[in-house]
Parts: sequence; C-alpha cells; structure tokens
Amino acid sequence: MAMTSARASPFKGVVPYIVTPVDNFGVIQAEVVGRLCDDLIDAGVHGITPLGSTGEYAYLNQDQRTRMVEVTVKAVAGRVPVFAGVASVSVEAARFQARCYQNLGVDGIVVALDSYFPLGESEIESYFLSVADAIDLPMAVYTNPSFQRTDLSIGLIERMSRHQNIRAIKDASTNTGRLLSIMTHCEGRIDVLAASSHIPACVMMLGGKGWFSGPACLAPRQSVALYNCCVEQRWPEALDIQRQLWSVNEIFARYNLAACIKGGLEELGYPVGDPIPPQGPLNRQARAEVASVIAKLSHGTPQRLKGV
Amino acid sequence: MAMTSARASPFKGVVPYIVTPVDNFGVIQAEVVGRLCDDLIDAGVHGITPLGSTGEYAYLNQDQRTRMVEVTVKAVAGRVPVFAGVASVSVEAARFQARCYQNLGVDGIVVALDSYFPLGESEIESYFLSVADAIDLPMAVYTNPSFQRTDLSIGLIERMSRHQNIRAIKDASTNTGRLLSIMTHCEGRIDVLAASSHIPACVMMLGGKGWFSGPACLAPRQSVALYNCCVEQRWPEALDIQRQLWSVNEIFARYNLAACIKGGLEELGYPVGDPIPPQGPLNRQARAEVASVIAKLSHGTPQRLKGV
Amino acid sequence: MAMTSARASPFKGVVPYIVTPVDNFGVIQAEVVGRLCDDLIDAGVHGITPLGSTGEYAYLNQDQRTRMVEVTVKAVAGRVPVFAGVASVSVEAARFQARCYQNLGVDGIVVALDSYFPLGESEIESYFLSVADAIDLPMAVYTNPSFQRTDLSIGLIERMSRHQNIRAIKDASTNTGRLLSIMTHCEGRIDVLAASSHIPACVMMLGGKGWFSGPACLAPRQSVALYNCCVEQRWPEALDIQRQLWSVNEIFARYNLAACIKGGLEELGYPVGDPIPPQGPLNRQARAEVASVIAKLSHGTPQRLKGV
Amino acid sequence: MAMTSARASPFKGVVPYIVTPVDNFGVIQAEVVGRLCDDLIDAGVHGITPLGSTGEYAYLNQDQRTRMVEVTVKAVAGRVPVFAGVASVSVEAARFQARCYQNLGVDGIVVALDSYFPLGESEIESYFLSVADAIDLPMAVYTNPSFQRTDLSIGLIERMSRHQNIRAIKDASTNTGRLLSIMTHCEGRIDVLAASSHIPACVMMLGGKGWFSGPACLAPRQSVALYNCCVEQRWPEALDIQRQLWSVNEIFARYNLAACIKGGLEELGYPVGDPIPPQGPLNRQARAEVASVIAKLSHGTPQRLKGV
Repeated sequence: MAMTSARASPFKGVVPYIVTPVDNFGVIQAEVVGRLCDDLIDAGVHGITPLGSTGEYAYLNQDQRTRMVEVTVKAVAGRVPVFAGVASVSVEAARFQARCYQNLGVDGIVVALDSYFPLGESEIESYFLSVADAIDLPMAVYTNPSFQRTDLSIGLIERMSRHQNIRAIKDASTNTGRLLSIMTHCEGRIDVLAASSHIPACVMMLGGKGWFSGPACLAPRQSVALYNCCVEQRWPEALDIQRQLWSVNEIFARYNLAACIKGGLEELGYPVGDPIPPQGPLNRQARAEVASVIAKLSHGTPQRLKGV
Repeated sequence: MAMTSARASPFKGVVPYIVTPVDNFGVIQAEVVGRLCDDLIDAGVHGITPLGSTGEYAYLNQDQRTRMVEVTVKAVAGRVPVFAGVASVSVEAARFQARCYQNLGVDGIVVALDSYFPLGESEIESYFLSVADAIDLPMAVYTNPSFQRTDLSIGLIERMSRHQNIRAIKDASTNTGRLLSIMTHCEGRIDVLAASSHIPACVMMLGGKGWFSGPACLAPRQSVALYNCCVEQRWPEALDIQRQLWSVNEIFARYNLAACIKGGLEELGYPVGDPIPPQGPLNRQARAEVASVIAKLSHGTPQRLKGV
Repeated sequence: MAMTSARASPFKGVVPYIVTPVDNFGVIQAEVVGRLCDDLIDAGVHGITPLGSTGEYAYLNQDQRTRMVEVTVKAVAGRVPVFAGVASVSVEAARFQARCYQNLGVDGIVVALDSYFPLGESEIESYFLSVADAIDLPMAVYTNPSFQRTDLSIGLIERMSRHQNIRAIKDASTNTGRLLSIMTHCEGRIDVLAASSHIPACVMMLGGKGWFSGPACLAPRQSVALYNCCVEQRWPEALDIQRQLWSVNEIFARYNLAACIKGGLEELGYPVGDPIPPQGPLNRQARAEVASVIAKLSHGTPQRLKGV
Repeated sequence: MAMTSARASPFKGVVPYIVTPVDNFGVIQAEVVGRLCDDLIDAGVHGITPLGSTGEYAYLNQDQRTRMVEVTVKAVAGRVPVFAGVASVSVEAARFQARCYQNLGVDGIVVALDSYFPLGESEIESYFLSVADAIDLPMAVYTNPSFQRTDLSIGLIERMSRHQNIRAIKDASTNTGRLLSIMTHCEGRIDVLAASSHIPACVMMLGGKGWFSGPACLAPRQSVALYNCCVEQRWPEALDIQRQLWSVNEIFARYNLAACIKGGLEELGYPVGDPIPPQGPLNRQARAEVASVIAKLSHGTPQRLKGV
C-alpha cells in the first residue's frame, strides 16, 4: 500500500530551522537573517522555519518572536514557504502566536506543547485542536519528548490527523519505528517529517516527506542532494551522503544544539552571535569539532553540490 | 552543632503559595486575591508568595505576572513579607522580573530556573548569581527537579550560599536527606525551607526554618499550629497535626496541583476559578476527595485553631 | 564507503529468539523445542538463539538454562548455527555460562550484562572482554538499555570491536541512528544486527547484517522474505512486507514480550505453555489481538511464502 | 493516634546488612563473618541480615547464598534474630530461597522482587503473597525502586499488610513522605523500617521501628546510640548523632555501596576482600574519603559508645 496524502501539504523536503541572531540588546539582526535565508534558498531548501528549538524560541520573549517571524517572512519573500514555530504551556498564548504569525504572512505553523504540570491526554488534545481552530493555515504538530516532555500517543495523533488544518507531524524522538506506526495508523491523512534525531534516508524510505532540521543550516546543499536521491530512490547514493551528514548530527547530539548551529554558522561567516544566556557558547574543543565536521562536509561534497 | 543563620532572613515560617485567579479575559481578580491574603494573614501565616508553581506562573504572560505581584503587595500592605516567584529559561527575562518586582515593593524573591536545552553546572550557576546581582533584596533559590528538570548539586548550592543576597533554599524534591546534606554543607549560611513534598515536621526537626506550600492556602491555621509546635519542640503534638496535614498533600500529589488548590479554595468559598487551560479543572471524583479532606481538616481542628 | 566485515561472522540473517517451554515442575519440553526448531529452519531462518529475553533467561535457573541449550543444539543438529544467550551481573557466572555452552556445541554466544549496582565504563568493559577471553567462539554483544539498564557508549563498543572474538553487536534500544553511529565508528570490524525494536528494513539499508528477534518465531517466512528482499535491494517489495511485520511488533510492544510470543505460538499450535510466574499469561483481549495479527499475517502472505 | 503494631514483630532496631566475604574461588569466609557478627552484636545491634544489596546477593549463586545464610545463623547463634534476604525475578526461585533459609533457622526473611520484564500490579502482588505463603516466618517486604525497578503502590502495600506473615516493610526510596503515607494507610498492621537513603531520626519520629542499613556495619555503636535516643525521644541528642552518621551515608551514595562497606570494613581490620567483579574496589581517593569518615566517627564518639 502506497502512503499517499489526499490533501496537498506545504510541509515537505528539507526545511531548516534557522537560528535567531540577537545582539546584546536583544534586537533581532535582520540583515543576518536575510543573508542566511538567501543562501539556504539558493542551496535549494524547500522551506524555512523560524522559532524552532534551534531558533531558541524558548529563550525569546513574545516581541522578539514576532519580530523574528516578520523579518523571516520579509527575507524569504515568497521564494519558499515559511513555517513559524508556535509553542507554549498555555492554550491562549499559543493561539495568540498562531494568529499573529498568520497575520504576518507565514505559510504554515509548527506547533509544540511546552510542559509544566503533567497533562492528561484530553488536555493535550484540546491544546493542539484549539490552536488548529484558531487559524486558516496548514499546521504541523511537533512532538519532542526530550525537551517538551509531552509525548503524544499514536491514538492521539490518529485522532488529530482528522482535523482539516493538521497536515503533518514532526516527531523528534529517536524512535524511528514510531514514525512507521504513525504512518500506518494515520492512513495518509497526515504527512510525517523527520527530525535531526532520525536518519532522514530511513524515514524517506518508509514514506516520510522530508525533514525539519537545525543542522541543515550548515549543510543545505548536501541535505537537498540527499532528499533528491531519496525521492528518486537512488538509495546507494543517498546512503553515501547520509553517512556524511550523520557525522554532523553526532557532534550536535553531544552539545547544546543552538550553540552548535550558531557556532557552525559563525565558522561559515555568518555573524549570528552566541546562544542566549545562560546557555554558553561552545567551548574551544567543541568549536574545533564543529569546524572540522563542516570542513569535511565541504571537502566531501561532490562538485555539483558546491555553490557556484 | 546548632544550625544558626548569621544573617537575618525574612524567609521563615509558613509561606503559602497563593493561586492566581484570572477571569476569561485573563484579568487578575484583585478582590479575590485581597480576600485570600486577608484570611491567610488572619490565620497567622508568616509570608505570602505569588507566582509559585501553584500560582501557575508558567501559564501567565509577563503582564499578568507583574499585575499579580502588584495586586498582592497592595493587598498584603506590609502585614507580612511578600516574596515573588521569579523563573525563566533566560537570564535576561529573570533579571527583568526580579528588578520589576523589587520596584513593586516585594520583600524578597524566590528564584527558579526553567529548562529547555540541558545546561552545564556553570551555566546554571551563572543564572542564579546573575539574578542575585540584579537586586537589593533577599533571595531564595527554588529547585524543583520534577517540574524544572534542573537539579542543583550540593556543591553548587554551597557556592551560591556565599552570595550576600542568597539567603534561603527551597527544595521541592521528595528527598528529605538532601535537605540535611544542604544544611550540613552550607554551614548555616542559607536557611532551608521545605516544600509540600516534604514532611514539614521532619524538616523543622532537622533545622529547617519553615515551608513554602500551596496546600497551606487550604489549611493555614493547622499549618501555623504545626509550625508553632515545631518551634517549641512539642513533637508529639506536632505529629498529630502533621498526620492530618499529610493527608491533604497525598490527595494533591495525585492530581494537578493548581487544580487542587483552586478547587479547594472554591469549596471554601473563594471564587478563584479554574486552572488555566489546557489544564482542566478537577473531575467530579477528585473534587469530592478534596472537599472531603478539607471537611475532615476543619472537623479535626482543635477549637483554638479555628477562626473566631 | 561500503561497510564490509573483514572477518567471517556467523551472525547474520533472521535469527529467532526461541521461547523456553517449561512444565509445572520446571522441566524443559524438549519435544516442543524440537518441533519449533524444525519449523523455523524449514521456513528458512539463518540461526536459532535460545536464552534471549524472549527465552526468559532471566527467569530460569542455571540448570534449566544449560538444559535448554543442550536441547536446542540437539534439535537443530547443525542445520543452522545456534547462538546461546549469556547474561549475568557477575563476571564469574557469565564466564561459566559461556564455557558451558561452548562445551555443549553452540556456534556463538550473545552476551548481555545484567545490572544491579551502577557500573563505571571500565567495569562494563571488563565484563564483556572477560567473557570474550573465556571462549573460542564468535561472540555478539547484546545491549538492551530498557531491560539491562547498562548502556554502552559508542567509544566502548569501538574498543570492544577490536577483540578477535567479538564479531557483532545487537542493540535493542529504539534509536536507529545509534546503529549507524556504531557502524561508522567501528569501521566494519563488527557487524550490526537489529532488534525487534528497530525496523529491520531500515537497518539493512544502513548496512546491517540481519536481526535477532522474538517475534520472528511467529512470522519466520515473512521475516526471511523481508531479509531476502533487503539483501537483493528490492526495497519497495521489502517495505510491503515490513509494514505487515511492524504491526506484529506494535502489539508486542504493548504487552509482556514472552507472554506475547508464547501466546502466539500457542495460537499456532505449539504447546509452549505460559510465561514463568510472576509473569501472567496474556489476558483475553491481548490474546485476541495477537491471534488477529497472526491471522492477518498468514492471510497477507504471498502464496510462495506459505508452508507447503 | 499512636501507631502501634497489634502483632509482635522481630523487625526492629538497628539491623545491619552484612557484607559477603568471598575468596577468589568464591568460598564464603566463615571466620570473617563470625568476627563481624560478634562485634556487631557486642555493639548492641538488634538483628543481622545477610543477603541484602550490601551483601551482594545479586552477584552470588544460590549455593553461595545458602552457605552465607548457614554461616551467619551459626555465627549469630541466637543472640539476635537473623533475617535473610530473599530476591528473584521468579516466584519459584524466591519460594525456594525462603523455604531453604527457614530450614536453616533464620528468624525472618526480607523479600525483594528483582525485575526483568515490567510487571502489572497483580503480578507483583502474587509474587510477594506467594512467598509469604511458602513460609512460617515473619516477613518484611523490601522495595528499592532504584535497584529493583519495581515500585509498590501504597494500595498494594496496604493489601499485603493483611497477610499474617507480612509484618514489616523496608522502603529504600529517598521519599520520606512515602513512609508516613504507608504508616497511615496500613493502620499499624505492618511496621515501617528505614533504609540508609532515609534519615533514621526522622523515620523514628514518624513512628518507624528501626532501620536496615549497610553503613551500620561501620558505625554500629553510633547507630545503636541514635536508636536509643529516638526511642527515648531525646531528639536534640539524637540529631547530634544523626548529623555525624549522615555524613557517612553521603559518601556511600556517591560510590558503589558494596565497595564502600567492604572498603570501610577493610579499614577497620576485617579482611572482607573486594566486591565481586565486574564491580571494582574503591579507587584510592574514594578509599581515603571512607577512611576519613570512619576516623571522624570514632573520634566523635562519646566515650561510652566506644568498645571496651
């Protein structure tokens, strides 16, 4: 049985989570966002997502979040879809974010539930459905048990997949089998996208539609090449690229994710600054590891993948 | 060796975490806060803390938090000290809160570190010290591994106890032995207060100075009576009261804490409303259990503890 | 870079963990073991492993374990390799098991470390190396963080892969990315096999050599068909079979594994009995789910996969 | 309400878990056990327990366990009660141990449930009740969530407290509030004893009857003095001793428990040997810490507590 989505969905391909460059006064650096978006789009990415984990949404106040979405939408200028991250412990705050970003012109939202007190399943469901009801946009559900501590059961995902706005799910557990279970039980009503904790080539083989990824900021061309190989089912070639990309992820799993992506982008010449305190920047050794991984990536890139 | 604090500290006795009553538009109900504060102060509590876990700080936006502190300070009007809860994942936001509440006239702050990405110990330390540096007020460190996921090592607490503003720690693990370790290693430089997950009589016997507690909103007179027995070392009497109070905590450990305290206060006639969504109110059975526990408490209260 | 093993290894293909049928006196039912082995070998499996988790090794005394290995070796009679599970908290006991099973004629051992007190990495390493030194057989390391609570770091696995007897690793986490990391860092010195918590088709695509699996007892022909498709890189066909087989795993993840496999084998006519107490047999509903999954499997099996 | 036990129970006072000294051939060193028991009894302990966690029961085979109980019963010779540790994942094995130790003359058993596959509550209950039915001896239930991973709900403990042989519970969580809940809900039908993860003075104040403890091997006189102070409700004196003893526990919580107690006993002149591999002995620094703590204890002991 082929897994097909009856409903068109904008969530597909390689979608980098971009970082949020802020200066010491907390001001979003629009120029840096612009350059990063330009280069990612030139590299062929299929969408851009501000305010993911990598985008340090949790460390920003609402004004900064709103401004970051505004800046990104303007920078991307319709070349690819922009999906904004929406997340809160509170229904009201999440609905506010969703409506606000819709007004700013995003093409979809990626919604997570932050946690404080433990919630029952019906409370979790009410959060996501209430946000989905607040907008006229495609929505992806984002579940990340290690940061948000709210796990979504397959049954809950299956029920939510029946809402007209909920078109995709991005699962950031490390459990790839769970993705296959979601695909099977949702019968194609929602698309599944991988996170950087999964092996994209595997998820694509199982029927995934792409991946949201912080590390894709650092290796957009290789990521797009991998995606194309997967779509064209050229698996041996896909796996060659996959193995290189996985070595990037291994580094990032050892350190603070935002510090890694920001540190790596600094290496590549983007003045994105340090992660937001109390998060510290990478120490010297970690920075060297990230630099080395990036250098290897460029070196190992087939000529056609490199920039002009 | 007696555990004595060389520095005067306002953190002592029974300090209820008060709930945050909001209407459907998110407006803080000042009149309800006022009545609750009046009654708690009449019952003899030694301080009042808005914006704790019970106060649903995590579910409020910054405007609501600021307003709640303002309303509480005004309601209490200097009769007992007011300690405001300060918590964020971000240093900048926590420093802002701390300064803001100092300007509003609080007598101290209780500082927690919310978590998103895991932090190293030096990052955790920088958060607390940076907040302590931002104010001219006594500060209590609040550690709650189950909600904030950041545990503080004894060594870290020992180092922080040397900051002139850091005068107390409130530990909300269930590990009572940890409190004795903190007392021993900090050599009296900071006071230890219990949370509702500890048995106050035990913590007092070990040298604790009091307890911060959501459930104390529902049983302020019994809590104060327990405190007085402990201070006067009338242990058998203390334990009789303790056993009754513990039955309240047992109920609350089974359900959402804010829902329990708000439900219990509604039973007692305070129109505090429901917890903030997606948290649901207590279901019928839980509400009945809370009502029953409150009724037993009143019934079991020695005549002299009851209100006039 | 192709992942190739320089050293021949017997660990490959579909290797069912067989159950341990015991009567009420604790006696191993040799006739049942014999029938099960015959049928699995007829179905094309590439090896047989007694004393895995599914084989309830943890619930057997050493006499029963020894007898189970003896009975299996005799039943298999050299048609496929037999790998015996070795596991203990104690080095001495594990070495004894390993030598004992070598004397009984097994073709390899699969070694796990049970846990009691937490161990440091050098203690963990000494356990595995000490067992490897005790034998003249190929050995697979078996790591199962959810049951044995000892996780093996990639660095530790890399070091162990240099021992001449250690030829394979079977990782029973749900983290498929970890398998790719192991493959990369061990540079082909040891082979990686999947567990039933992974999707075999994915692991094979990444360079895996096969899988150890309890559920393969119930679907040996489909499992072998899947393996063959993977080896021949017929991925779309592989995935069709994979989706069916995954539905079996989903059921088993919800219940006690031994109870599921024993219950399923009873459904198929093997009198393997109940799991060893205090484990209870499947309740009526779970038994019906298992029966239904097995029925669907048989129904969906292409004609050529069914028995003659 | 005073917590009184209607039924006489031998489980009370200070009950050291003794270590299991084995030579390189795995032979129990009866002479060392004898000397240790003599000295502990001279120091005033109220019972002796072989085969606890500290006794490394998990690392011994059944022959060694049986021999250890035999040797201990003979050494103690009726001067104080002997309670043998019983633990397994299997009902049958646990029942065998219990009957075997009864035949060897123990005065009671302390029963834990080791875990492999997760169990439901009725399976857990069947294990304990089945062991209780197998003997004509008082039995204590031992629950240790960190090593055995099976937690017992208060409801389950309450039900088990109605079995005529089940007279006590020893809870080795760090959650002291849980002990008060057990006392309240079991209404005096079973006695509660502390573990070394609790503060004995607190548990005694709440109504506990004593404590099972590995560290008591190293500080028997101070432990007995603490117990006597508690029984006589001389709390300030109790707390002075308690603070000293807690510093011993703090060290032990940082390292392997068996390694600490064996290392400490070696310091005191008992040739108990190293912990059983793969557990390593204490490293040099840890050994020095243990030695220092023991030296301080002896120094701080009031003259009347020291040996003649």
